[in-house]
Amino acid sequence: MSMSLDGIIGGSDVDTEQLLHEWFFEPSERNAEYIDELRTAIGAVVMGRRTYEEGASVDGFVDNPYPIDHFVLSHDVPETTAAGETSFTFVTAGIESAVEQASGAADTGVVCIMGGAETVQQHLEAGLVDKLWIHLVPVLLGDEIRLFDTVNPTHIELEPTNVVATPAVTHLQFAVVGR
Amino acid sequence: MSMSLDGIIGGSDVDTEQLLHEWFFEPSERNAEYIDELRTAIGAVVMGRRTYEEGASVDGFVDNPYPIDHFVLSHDVPETTAAGETSFTFVTAGIESAVEQASGAADTGVVCIMGGAETVQQHLEAGLVDKLWIHLVPVLLGDEIRLFDTVNPTHIELEPTNVVATPAVTHLQFAVVGR
Repeated sequence: MSMSLDGIIGGSDVDTEQLLHEWFFEPSERNAEYIDELRTAIGAVVMGRRTYEEGASVDGFVDNPYPIDHFVLSHDVPETTAAGETSFTFVTAGIESAVEQASGAADTGVVCIMGGAETVQQHLEAGLVDKLWIHLVPVLLGDEIRLFDTVNPTHIELEPTNVVATPAVTHLQFAVVGR
Repeated sequence: MSMSLDGIIGGSDVDTEQLLHEWFFEPSERNAEYIDELRTAIGAVVMGRRTYEEGASVDGFVDNPYPIDHFVLSHDVPETTAAGETSFTFVTAGIESAVEQASGAADTGVVCIMGGAETVQQHLEAGLVDKLWIHLVPVLLGDEIRLFDTVNPTHIELEPTNVVATPAVTHLQFAVVGR
């Protein structure tokens, strides 16, 4: 997840989205390498229905940078799915089922919980998250959508496993070690 | 400021405070070096009245790790001040005055806005902050006191200037470059 220093991962205006994802869509050489490492590592994607609908409405996932199996948490299965090459499976049986199906599809790759914030929080609280990969964007955005806003005040301890510092973004990797 | 990955800088329980400041009070060798660098850099301190009262009630600032001039933002001047060697000046004329007085006292050192969160936010919003030095502690703490909670949704752009990664904490330095 791309996150501002004040914990914001999205917002209502285009400017917010652009500031958060510029490092990804117009990457420096070092960030392009990092993105390649992410693409190699990630074997399947889990996302919330709203995140899916947003992607579908923007470009139908035609230029999806992750052309791998996607599992969409959903209350129902839509009649038509987004165009493009990406395979979407709509999971109505809950987050454990989505992670289990995605783990099967990911083979030796990792399952990426791609968002939104509530979906990440649900997986964190259920103990289904092993690692946090945060792309810390150097900006303060103010009161928008916070990644960790409603995580219960249970202390979740992390261990920093990797830091890559670039001018546009600081990549922080953590292991979830306890709670 | 020591801040958890979810943006928390303090809380109601002892555990939260300990998790946030363990790197400082029981430092590894690398973190002891970093703390020395901070001590050398900081020439004066500005703090809110509540932060002062908390320090005074804990140990009267007797073991203050920053034995330099402190300027306390205040509505009134208390009759007695905390024991210990630290010089405290109570500033009732507002944040601009506090920063100006602290700048004079700091000589070539930097003025550290030591907290709390509201005090930092006030200085940020008034454009009085040049640098953010964040000690990012690898833990998610949940719903407590957030450093950047009420910053207005004006985008404040930062530039990463230094990153020091240690197991206990990731030290992030930013320059405030625009808004």
